[in-house]
Amino acid sequence: MRPIDLRSDTVTRPTPGMREAMARAEVGDDVYGEDPTVRRLEERVAELFGKEAALLVASGTMANQVALGVLARGGDEVICEAGAHCFAFEGGALSALWGIQARTLAGERGVLDPAAVEAAIRPDDPHYPRTRAVAIENTHNRGGGKVWPLQAVRAVGEVAARRGLALYMDGARLMNAVVASGTPARDYAAPATLASLCLSKGLGAPVGSVLAGPRDLVQEARRLRKRLGGGMRQAGILAAAGLYALDHHVARLAEDHANAARLGALLSQLPGARLQFPVETNLLFVAFDGRRAAELAPRLREAGVLCNPEGSRPDLLRFVTHLDVGASDIEEAARRIAAAVGA
Amino acid sequence: MRPIDLRSDTVTRPTPGMREAMARAEVGDDVYGEDPTVRRLEERVAELFGKEAALLVASGTMANQVALGVLARGGDEVICEAGAHCFAFEGGALSALWGIQARTLAGERGVLDPAAVEAAIRPDDPHYPRTRAVAIENTHNRGGGKVWPLQAVRAVGEVAARRGLALYMDGARLMNAVVASGTPARDYAAPATLASLCLSKGLGAPVGSVLAGPRDLVQEARRLRKRLGGGMRQAGILAAAGLYALDHHVARLAEDHANAARLGALLSQLPGARLQFPVETNLLFVAFDGRRAAELAPRLREAGVLCNPEGSRPDLLRFVTHLDVGASDIEEAARRIAAAVGA
Amino acid sequence: MRPIDLRSDTVTRPTPGMREAMARAEVGDDVYGEDPTVRRLEERVAELFGKEAALLVASGTMANQVALGVLARGGDEVICEAGAHCFAFEGGALSALWGIQARTLAGERGVLDPAAVEAAIRPDDPHYPRTRAVAIENTHNRGGGKVWPLQAVRAVGEVAARRGLALYMDGARLMNAVVASGTPARDYAAPATLASLCLSKGLGAPVGSVLAGPRDLVQEARRLRKRLGGGMRQAGILAAAGLYALDHHVARLAEDHANAARLGALLSQLPGARLQFPVETNLLFVAFDGRRAAELAPRLREAGVLCNPEGSRPDLLRFVTHLDVGASDIEEAARRIAAAVGA
Amino acid sequence: MRPIDLRSDTVTRPTPGMREAMARAEVGDDVYGEDPTVRRLEERVAELFGKEAALLVASGTMANQVALGVLARGGDEVICEAGAHCFAFEGGALSALWGIQARTLAGERGVLDPAAVEAAIRPDDPHYPRTRAVAIENTHNRGGGKVWPLQAVRAVGEVAARRGLALYMDGARLMNAVVASGTPARDYAAPATLASLCLSKGLGAPVGSVLAGPRDLVQEARRLRKRLGGGMRQAGILAAAGLYALDHHVARLAEDHANAARLGALLSQLPGARLQFPVETNLLFVAFDGRRAAELAPRLREAGVLCNPEGSRPDLLRFVTHLDVGASDIEEAARRIAAAVGA
Repeated sequence: MRPIDLRSDTVTRPTPGMREAMARAEVGDDVYGEDPTVRRLEERVAELFGKEAALLVASGTMANQVALGVLARGGDEVICEAGAHCFAFEGGALSALWGIQARTLAGERGVLDPAAVEAAIRPDDPHYPRTRAVAIENTHNRGGGKVWPLQAVRAVGEVAARRGLALYMDGARLMNAVVASGTPARDYAAPATLASLCLSKGLGAPVGSVLAGPRDLVQEARRLRKRLGGGMRQAGILAAAGLYALDHHVARLAEDHANAARLGALLSQLPGARLQFPVETNLLFVAFDGRRAAELAPRLREAGVLCNPEGSRPDLLRFVTHLDVGASDIEEAARRIAAAVGA
Repeated sequence: MRPIDLRSDTVTRPTPGMREAMARAEVGDDVYGEDPTVRRLEERVAELFGKEAALLVASGTMANQVALGVLARGGDEVICEAGAHCFAFEGGALSALWGIQARTLAGERGVLDPAAVEAAIRPDDPHYPRTRAVAIENTHNRGGGKVWPLQAVRAVGEVAARRGLALYMDGARLMNAVVASGTPARDYAAPATLASLCLSKGLGAPVGSVLAGPRDLVQEARRLRKRLGGGMRQAGILAAAGLYALDHHVARLAEDHANAARLGALLSQLPGARLQFPVETNLLFVAFDGRRAAELAPRLREAGVLCNPEGSRPDLLRFVTHLDVGASDIEEAARRIAAAVGA
Repeated sequence: MRPIDLRSDTVTRPTPGMREAMARAEVGDDVYGEDPTVRRLEERVAELFGKEAALLVASGTMANQVALGVLARGGDEVICEAGAHCFAFEGGALSALWGIQARTLAGERGVLDPAAVEAAIRPDDPHYPRTRAVAIENTHNRGGGKVWPLQAVRAVGEVAARRGLALYMDGARLMNAVVASGTPARDYAAPATLASLCLSKGLGAPVGSVLAGPRDLVQEARRLRKRLGGGMRQAGILAAAGLYALDHHVARLAEDHANAARLGALLSQLPGARLQFPVETNLLFVAFDGRRAAELAPRLREAGVLCNPEGSRPDLLRFVTHLDVGASDIEEAARRIAAAVGA
Repeated sequence: MRPIDLRSDTVTRPTPGMREAMARAEVGDDVYGEDPTVRRLEERVAELFGKEAALLVASGTMANQVALGVLARGGDEVICEAGAHCFAFEGGALSALWGIQARTLAGERGVLDPAAVEAAIRPDDPHYPRTRAVAIENTHNRGGGKVWPLQAVRAVGEVAARRGLALYMDGARLMNAVVASGTPARDYAAPATLASLCLSKGLGAPVGSVLAGPRDLVQEARRLRKRLGGGMRQAGILAAAGLYALDHHVARLAEDHANAARLGALLSQLPGARLQFPVETNLLFVAFDGRRAAELAPRLREAGVLCNPEGSRPDLLRFVTHLDVGASDIEEAARRIAAAVGA
């Protein structure tokens, strides 16, 4: 029995077309700024986001950390949602690498309330860190793949701009938000000082994220990337996969969303099953009658469905649809899950 | 009109007796460990807390930072209450100095729920920082001078011990908790790996805090104190004030508590005034009909009462009783406040 | 005129065979530890170095920083040569990322004197950082590609072991040392707690380095890699190139060495030209009669030879031979240089 | 036998006059900026140095660290002499607290060569940290109490100014330089962006240093002081001692210098004794025929003379004259030393 892997959209393997693009990629030494494919990818994402410049980095985590390391410094504070990836899943990097303190707010499925953001800004006094930036994540993973309404991004951006803060948008799954909402990427990116796009989640590239923003900040990001050991030489191999993904794997995210919705519909019919949130994109959080996720996940694995516990609550499982999972896999996954949970 | 200063218990001036103790203090070079008065103070606090050793530091902030810098390292996480002094009022030091990420929980007046503490401990996985310590603050300033029930300290200590975490107790106002509850300091300190005592708040010394714990950790604290520039030479001058405070200013904290309670009773009779919390020790948080604290505080200053806005809500004022404020000052302060708020 | 690029051995482009290996690589999600090609590469390097385990990282800089971040912590000191890459060329990362202080010693072409290392170890006193590790670089770039004699590695390792320090060997160009000296990699690695190998310098892979050591430290390295944003998903694409390089590009480093020696011989005949060091591997530092390197390099570029100023002295140029430069290129490069410097 | 303590000028005990000044000091809460004695001291030192503002801190180490933390940030580089206190004796604080990399140069008795400073400035490239400041120490402890010639300070200041770097002058023993050279403090301070003065070394106050500079940087220093836990409440007690020291203990430093010179003359007559440097101020480094300082120091202690090994060489002892050592003590110390070393 071939397992159906719904743990994450990071597990996708490059398609034959993508492999061919990588194999033929024209490359150079990107630390010297001479890899033409990297340049093309960076220009492409800068254009997509309506920014002056962009920078390829090794991962979504590196994009987040480089961005926030550019926007704030030791002793500063960054406001983010309590479940934000940059705070919750990056090994304490914000504090460890840059000395930045995270001020976490509880959002509505990850979406911050602009008034709460404003209230969290510190007065100018030596007792307090300096509030320097706001970080948002769109879609918001821990909010169940929640799409930020454009108005919400703009409202937080307005607070940030008025109060002299930078805004960073973690776009690990931004194209999911774009496809689900019909909002262009550049509209989402407009209020953000810096914004990122991950190539190796829903877009299906093997490695890489891109960070976009004004030229001077991207130059500073290049400096921090080097410091993190993220300067890669013939990175055009990876950039070629990213370009291919932008050409071929954006519109199809709608299939992932439909698959997630379908899986949600099937699972919600199981006795005791409860979706934590309505499905908006490719993420689905489900609880089964209060059973512990840490016990259910291995049982589902035996039954041929891979998924991860969603650590924000002990009874939640997270299912993620992606490029390597088709509509029929979804039907089959639902059957396997039903059998495994004894429904 | 002499202003009545209720901004903080840090504003007290040394009494004549304390000044004389300082003037006569026997001193030596404490960086060489040769100041006899510092040694006596350190031994006294170690004994009071039931710990092996103690260390004089320059402030409550330095005690907190040195303690947590001993207990955790870059990339680790420390669990604390969202309003904890070590997170909220120390210039982002936890992250800036040590690279520690603070995981903040909402407590009940600052008192943490042991189950919430346990749920916040991170799994062992490279995605997460390592949870290394829990920090509590007793009394809890932002909880309105809340006294931690001994059982609550023990319950959090039990979680920490069972899960391999250190426990740090910030005792900036520990003697207020001791006097208010009748719980001995050493009982409070027993579950804590390291615990501190501030000499320059309610106890009325001009400068200094003491950190107590096992000998090896206190030795490491001495190292970190040096790194922060907290090695002071003839610090016996300051230690003498601390010893005097321990001899003369502990039991009298009960007067501060009575004064705070009396002020609370008087203010709560004013139309529109509302105490945020019942008064337990020497802190009192009051809102006046939703009026902005940032506007009221200057008005009260003109009327001869000094107090600070309590930053956790825009309409709160904080009043603090202390050694330099007597019972009659309280009556007078209430009259001035009543007049100023137009009651 | 096709330029002959002697700036660095990082500029090599993947060969057709290497591209094919990448295109066919079996991959998985390496953050989950499921990329079979990454695993094979890690096992291969662990075996090569005689260590328990290994870890693929994005660059030589990341290998260095992860290694030293594992071996030391904030407030510790690492002893290294003044020109060591980990100190001189990594954006201040040692201090910026980990809070580690570098204690730099002047070596003989980068080779440290064991007695000087021992003299630099700090006494145990709060005035001093704790000396925690020694870092060496083999071959040593700023020493002109100097091969560490095995005895020298062992002597420094003996001091480290006796004094309780870790030893890290930066193997950015270790295989050059192996090929030039005939010393097996595992003999070089034996005294080292952790050792690295760069795949994208002389070995000609596009991206990646590997860090090897005991299992527990490599597991900790995995944690730090994640924190730096170095967790890459289907990294098997890159690992395949690394495996190919280990199969096909090690023995041929002898050609690079011969080419560098030949270039050295040709250039040293030019009037006013002076080799800073005898050529041992693939690096060559040349001064031309005191002329400023910052002016000569652009002139050589116009003449069709790319090289970098060697920043340790204003009059030095660095030439590096590599996979993409053949013996006839060397003859031609020497002619172009001769013409350009007016010889 | 009363020991003669020549370990450091930090061991002095406050005189009766100084104690009385402390006992009578008018105080307030300095964290609120309300301590009148602290303010007077800060104004006094600002005036002395010809700067806009000044800040009292807990120690010379805190002055150094706050100053450099203001002038540079994580990933920056500060150029200093290899034996500078801020690098060699402060627990790795520069890197640990701020993420700053120290670029150490060998000076002539601690005096930096302006050309070497300029050559050490990094090019603007992501491979390098940003060179941000130069730190000098006047007098230079490890240079044997070396007085910086004013011209040398100006020459380094000129390089710094021309290349956009800040200059910090660690004035732990600045008044020794002033008294020895006749150069006014403000002339020394003029080229420095920030400069400090230690009150608890030769000046004989128990605790404290003062940092002076432009108003905005001193305000930022106040912020960093708070972060380090250096905000002290009724610090006027300490400031009073500092003011007293400035009134009474500056001119008398000439006696310390004469005593050091006399001791040097006496010791240099001992067979096998060799002064490392001519005596310029109150420090004296002596080697006795290659005997190990770690063995000699305890022997001298038994003989009634306290001194410290000077860690820069295994055979050096450091003797320091100060307020608590008179001319007759020097004669007696020389006799005891002569007897102890078997001369």
